[in-house]
Amino acid sequence: MATVVVSVKAGHDAAVVQAELVARGLWVERLEAGGRVQFVVEPHSQAVTREALLGIAGVEAAFAGKPAHPRMDAQAGRAVVVAGVAVGGGAAPPVVMAGPCSVESEAHIAATAARLAAAGVRFLRGGAFKPRTSPYAFQGHGERALGWLRVAADAHGLAVVTEVMSAEAGPLVAAHADLLQVGSRNMQNYALLAAVARLGRPVLLKRGMSATVEEWLLAGEYLLVGGAPAVILCERGVRGFDPSTRNVLDLGAVALLSHVHGLPVVVDPSHAVGRRDLVPALARAALAAGAAGLMVETHDDAGHALSDGPQALTPHEMQTLMDGLVKEVHRG
Amino acid sequence: MATVVVSVKAGHDAAVVQAELVARGLWVERLEAGGRVQFVVEPHSQAVTREALLGIAGVEAAFAGKPAHPRMDAQAGRAVVVAGVAVGGGAAPPVVMAGPCSVESEAHIAATAARLAAAGVRFLRGGAFKPRTSPYAFQGHGERALGWLRVAADAHGLAVVTEVMSAEAGPLVAAHADLLQVGSRNMQNYALLAAVARLGRPVLLKRGMSATVEEWLLAGEYLLVGGAPAVILCERGVRGFDPSTRNVLDLGAVALLSHVHGLPVVVDPSHAVGRRDLVPALARAALAAGAAGLMVETHDDAGHALSDGPQALTPHEMQTLMDGLVKEVHRG
Amino acid sequence: MATVVVSVKAGHDAAVVQAELVARGLWVERLEAGGRVQFVVEPHSQAVTREALLGIAGVEAAFAGKPAHPRMDAQAGRAVVVAGVAVGGGAAPPVVMAGPCSVESEAHIAATAARLAAAGVRFLRGGAFKPRTSPYAFQGHGERALGWLRVAADAHGLAVVTEVMSAEAGPLVAAHADLLQVGSRNMQNYALLAAVARLGRPVLLKRGMSATVEEWLLAGEYLLVGGAPAVILCERGVRGFDPSTRNVLDLGAVALLSHVHGLPVVVDPSHAVGRRDLVPALARAALAAGAAGLMVETHDDAGHALSDGPQALTPHEMQTLMDGLVKEVHRG
Amino acid sequence: MATVVVSVKAGHDAAVVQAELVARGLWVERLEAGGRVQFVVEPHSQAVTREALLGIAGVEAAFAGKPAHPRMDAQAGRAVVVAGVAVGGGAAPPVVMAGPCSVESEAHIAATAARLAAAGVRFLRGGAFKPRTSPYAFQGHGERALGWLRVAADAHGLAVVTEVMSAEAGPLVAAHADLLQVGSRNMQNYALLAAVARLGRPVLLKRGMSATVEEWLLAGEYLLVGGAPAVILCERGVRGFDPSTRNVLDLGAVALLSHVHGLPVVVDPSHAVGRRDLVPALARAALAAGAAGLMVETHDDAGHALSDGPQALTPHEMQTLMDGLVKEVHRG
Repeated sequence: MATVVVSVKAGHDAAVVQAELVARGLWVERLEAGGRVQFVVEPHSQAVTREALLGIAGVEAAFAGKPAHPRMDAQAGRAVVVAGVAVGGGAAPPVVMAGPCSVESEAHIAATAARLAAAGVRFLRGGAFKPRTSPYAFQGHGERALGWLRVAADAHGLAVVTEVMSAEAGPLVAAHADLLQVGSRNMQNYALLAAVARLGRPVLLKRGMSATVEEWLLAGEYLLVGGAPAVILCERGVRGFDPSTRNVLDLGAVALLSHVHGLPVVVDPSHAVGRRDLVPALARAALAAGAAGLMVETHDDAGHALSDGPQALTPHEMQTLMDGLVKEVHRG
Repeated sequence: MATVVVSVKAGHDAAVVQAELVARGLWVERLEAGGRVQFVVEPHSQAVTREALLGIAGVEAAFAGKPAHPRMDAQAGRAVVVAGVAVGGGAAPPVVMAGPCSVESEAHIAATAARLAAAGVRFLRGGAFKPRTSPYAFQGHGERALGWLRVAADAHGLAVVTEVMSAEAGPLVAAHADLLQVGSRNMQNYALLAAVARLGRPVLLKRGMSATVEEWLLAGEYLLVGGAPAVILCERGVRGFDPSTRNVLDLGAVALLSHVHGLPVVVDPSHAVGRRDLVPALARAALAAGAAGLMVETHDDAGHALSDGPQALTPHEMQTLMDGLVKEVHRG
Repeated sequence: MATVVVSVKAGHDAAVVQAELVARGLWVERLEAGGRVQFVVEPHSQAVTREALLGIAGVEAAFAGKPAHPRMDAQAGRAVVVAGVAVGGGAAPPVVMAGPCSVESEAHIAATAARLAAAGVRFLRGGAFKPRTSPYAFQGHGERALGWLRVAADAHGLAVVTEVMSAEAGPLVAAHADLLQVGSRNMQNYALLAAVARLGRPVLLKRGMSATVEEWLLAGEYLLVGGAPAVILCERGVRGFDPSTRNVLDLGAVALLSHVHGLPVVVDPSHAVGRRDLVPALARAALAAGAAGLMVETHDDAGHALSDGPQALTPHEMQTLMDGLVKEVHRG
Repeated sequence: MATVVVSVKAGHDAAVVQAELVARGLWVERLEAGGRVQFVVEPHSQAVTREALLGIAGVEAAFAGKPAHPRMDAQAGRAVVVAGVAVGGGAAPPVVMAGPCSVESEAHIAATAARLAAAGVRFLRGGAFKPRTSPYAFQGHGERALGWLRVAADAHGLAVVTEVMSAEAGPLVAAHADLLQVGSRNMQNYALLAAVARLGRPVLLKRGMSATVEEWLLAGEYLLVGGAPAVILCERGVRGFDPSTRNVLDLGAVALLSHVHGLPVVVDPSHAVGRRDLVPALARAALAAGAAGLMVETHDDAGHALSDGPQALTPHEMQTLMDGLVKEVHRG
């Protein structure tokens, strides 16, 4: 929870107050001045309302800051509806977004869309503009890929999500996509956030490589302040120290945003672990942690994928994953 | 996977070989010397056997190192049976280990054991010797706590898991516990690993604060080389940069160890997030990722717990978590 | 160094080759296939040329990849001259860039410039467009601040360095600044890198919050490929886990880029530690590690600074720091 | 600085108080309750005394916790004298500890000691008991190596520093060494800290792989509480994400401990970067940051070193480094 300082009434036993705070799941640090006691609540404490704190005998006041991201807070509990598909908001079954890393050709994305739609996927993903670490790597087919993507999605009743990499390309992307993606490398590219927000579409905001949850929420606030109607968050792993998985999938953040903040979070297990063999297990774990949906890379001929082949699921693996999810949902 | 270098036969098209490698989920880096091509396989690639690599047309050889931890590898696929309870090995329902951070009194642990056993918990946990960051913090009730723990567990058919903090105390702990825990701070305390191994009991090896999976497996290898009959790994979160959760629960490592290495991994969501409100969601996520079991801190009066109260589940929360798991298992 | 695999001639003793590799400062992993041995050189090894490797008896071949960032490599050893001031290239005394976090008013920046120029500073820094974590924080005085900055610098013979946050504002910034800064949050904002590169000015490229040295060099490569005449790198601390300093100043990366890659690196100790009391010590350490210059935040009334006041040096502290550096240089 | 909360007197303008706090280098968060204002001071703020805070007009009280490590605090400003050599305390020239990773033979360490003593080194280092990540790696020559080390050191007037890996081996090590080293992997091995403390010798406490400065100070407190006469801290790099240097040398922590806490810190650049070519630059940077000394690995035949050869300086490189330091000192 955000920083809170609880002051103890004069004459009350601070230890009794402390026990009540701890009982409510708060990690506290005891501070003193001139015989008076205050407790600073550490941020990794259970979320408790100010009212609950004031209800504890012996608590004099609960000092708190101004809400840092009131518009994101106000989105709590609501589903974000994109092209008729609800993401988050509690009630919805998990929404799956899938497709190749890059949109490779008209025929390829069309065939992919057909197969994914049949498997129960709701959003077609695919990069037209690709942020690549090297300037010499394939950078995406650009504008024409956007057209292919839209046509393929429409043919099968899918929504389109794809990345906007520049303010300049924003209107073009918005003309083809239902959900505008801001990538990890651009999470704190405030000029882009403002430009994307002005397009008036819901935004899928990927978490920066080493962004805190607060920084991520504040990036979402930029979008809402700038005019975006709604923000869906996407966790894709944070930078770690272990080469055996590419990134560290932070499902603690997903659970926090989903269960405590009430916001819709989609998890991308493909970029998180970068290992095809672990994608299905992490996809299931993400949903168990509270994710409202998944974004998964797939490819029918991964060996010849123009990017990220090693982490793409085959159509068969994707079908198996979807079958498992459907079973889960029917159970639930 | 461990480092592998694939060399391409002279006269073969390296791009064709590369496509086959990528199709198998391998991230490769292309190297050349005098017209010959080799591919270095990056560690976050899907696990593929050497035989599978040699079966690719155009592959001349697959260079690999000696197995780094042959005894841990040999444990793959086997359940570790502790006091009649199987952990891992695929077939078993998830095993739950629960109890207070510290063993606080004879009556307290007895009452706790009764309630946990009724809820379906199989191992009673509780600290007799506590590793505390500050020398001025409560360090555990020591030897007498071990006795209380054993009696409480026996009264309800529970196995006992508790931490060994020193070679000196090892025999004493082994006289009371079924499963010997080595804590995060001691994962690379090789003198302790040797001493614990000599006690001849299965060991629960918690991951170091920022240990890689390889370092963790090598710590396990120390135990097996030293005489421990079996090792259960325990993921408890790695050090991260975001104060909103205490640590980062690395379920990618859990999935890797479980699904690829075939080893039993127990997940401790309590220490991982340090927030009571997120423990149940992460417990479910851990099992979905492949964990063979859970270790959860509980307390019936968290406000007065001698340590870690804020992250302990109440008996009611624990019961709810267990009920959910039982439902899962019956479904599966 | 970049990934290299060394193969051993048949019939030669691999252990002898290994000793020669280790003697040259290489960490190697031994791999085998069918009786043949290869060594993979780990990246944190001393830089050794391929020729040196081939000169070792028993070495058959040294496999290496294509240079990943040939244009950055080609900049090695050269000073970058900005408005007549040489940065890097070995010969130059350290160049100091200083000024307030934000340009606050015409009078304020004018007075600041006078004082800094007198102290030996060569570049005036100050934000006109500020990337702020919160949308509700002060975002900079924009265009008019650029004018104030230019006038103040010109009055005292200083060069101007200031940040470009959007492609759109690029030409405006380039009309006022000698050195265009790309901030940490935008290090992998490839659309911005392309736009800034097209302006044809030297660029100061700050390292991303958790960017590897390779990713940083590749971002520089984007700039050079896109038309930038030269790149100066700026280390400003990477994200760490310890709240007692805001970031972790990575002087190992500075030494690597400076001494091994031969590139000009400027260090920003202010953002790295975020504590005024440690800025001077880290400034001196940066130069000892090989930095070609420093970027330091200063303010004459830090309590009323519009941003980052707590880490700004007072004019007196800045003077003391400069006096110390001058003494160093006269000694050298 | 440690957590502090500053409360503002009723009727005073909180913004005026805030400016005074910021002017003193404090990062503050403003909290309110019922019209009253408090400021939480963030830990990466400049160190300011409570008295200074209370001297600000409008400050009502400064709430602070009990000192967490009073004995470490009490060591502030004092040199630690080991076998007649003063480490830290401000006045002393930097103390250099050098030698091979492992003590390899009687003749080898004798020759090494002669050369190092001639170069101005004051402590001979070398491992008799080696903590190795793999159980199959060389574990040190043990007891006899301790004897060789002592004899070699005595022949040249050097002090001995070597690692204690177990309580059991403590007395043996203490019989041969002047300064007892606790390694990174054991920084939070509290049983070992207690055992080493009981030996009554000064201790060199290496920082854990990802320990915060507070955790490190608390580990030092365990030593002092347990009976150690004094603690020298040793920074050896923290775990990072960039494979181009093995660890991240955290000179911000060194500056903090040295300049703010007044404690003696020795820096080990060899383990920090793991690259021989960067050791000298980082050694110089460490001293500039405030280190009281250096610990450097050297070897005259690194290709055949029993461990860590690639990062060992040759005798010639070591001599060059020492010559540079001597020049620095004569200048200072």
